[in-house]
Amino acid sequence: MKKPAITQVPIDGTISNRWSGRAYDAGKAVSRDQIIALLEAARWAPSCFGDQPWRFIVWDRATDAAAWQKAFDCLVPGNQAWVKDAPLLFLAAADSLFNHNGKENRWGQYDTGAAAENLCLQATAMGLMAHQMGGFDAEKTREVFGIPQQYSLMAMIAVGYPADIGTLNGEALERETAPRSRRPLGELFFNGTWGKPAA
Amino acid sequence: MKKPAITQVPIDGTISNRWSGRAYDAGKAVSRDQIIALLEAARWAPSCFGDQPWRFIVWDRATDAAAWQKAFDCLVPGNQAWVKDAPLLFLAAADSLFNHNGKENRWGQYDTGAAAENLCLQATAMGLMAHQMGGFDAEKTREVFGIPQQYSLMAMIAVGYPADIGTLNGEALERETAPRSRRPLGELFFNGTWGKPAA
Repeated sequence: MKKPAITQVPIDGTISNRWSGRAYDAGKAVSRDQIIALLEAARWAPSCFGDQPWRFIVWDRATDAAAWQKAFDCLVPGNQAWVKDAPLLFLAAADSLFNHNGKENRWGQYDTGAAAENLCLQATAMGLMAHQMGGFDAEKTREVFGIPQQYSLMAMIAVGYPADIGTLNGEALERETAPRSRRPLGELFFNGTWGKPAA
Repeated sequence: MKKPAITQVPIDGTISNRWSGRAYDAGKAVSRDQIIALLEAARWAPSCFGDQPWRFIVWDRATDAAAWQKAFDCLVPGNQAWVKDAPLLFLAAADSLFNHNGKENRWGQYDTGAAAENLCLQATAMGLMAHQMGGFDAEKTREVFGIPQQYSLMAMIAVGYPADIGTLNGEALERETAPRSRRPLGELFFNGTWGKPAA
């Protein structure tokens, strides 16, 4: 299923086709090179002072099913319902301190969001689908995987090949078939000063 | 000047070619449709609960030089030295509250980073160059443009066509010609648990 963004003018196809679907193909493996490509895309995101405050854990069901299961068990039930078929899970975490001087990095989460978006776009570019989730137990995840307090746990990300929506049911199916939507441009983008619609 | 990312495996060309250069072509205009494309790319980023916590101001020197100048005056001198030739400036701001229920949105900055990265990648896809900056006076910017306290001012972004590096000198030229670098994959990306290098 493809649900490209609805835009006033054409935009880059990878950005347009990135979509957080829920129907994953449990039988179609993601290769080691594809995983490295996802990480490289995240790695080359921009960051304040080039500090690279993002940290990711990758769980690959094909090579370590037990670790994947531990990560899966940290998701809320509503997400588990559809993530069950995704071969890869990622955690995106943000360093709250600058690497170069140990002081507070107020761009840590912002830059980590950029790195995660690069990962999702790289997935799209390879015919995969990535879906970020805030719905997981961050404290449990921190404990299970021994993540220091210095890092904020931002999102879990499911990645895999898309499957036919016939693999879904209930709320996940409803959400999958609903039209994509965004707020009007003029509510979020301003021209020259705050609050004046840009388009 | 092109400085593609150095990666173990090939990645999407737009992600690879995105680079925060400093040499802008002051004489080459960015069209209205290109500006809309930049905003649309940001607009279609993913966000927690689909809340779209990002807000952007765009300053287009070609249509409102006075407003562009006010934004430029908020940058630190080290950035002004090269931003002077960029026809477009943007501010990326993050809502600290959810739109749907008014409660704290702990993903506001993370999601805004994704939207800004989409904008930068869309610029790259159109042959433009985008460079994000943390080096600006956030309090002054908030006052000059009347930005409510609810929004965190994350980055200013310069956008325009790249120019020959002969337009730069001093520190900006040095930085422009330095090789790109990132920390090794294994320092930032972990396999199955925290701290175990993924590659």
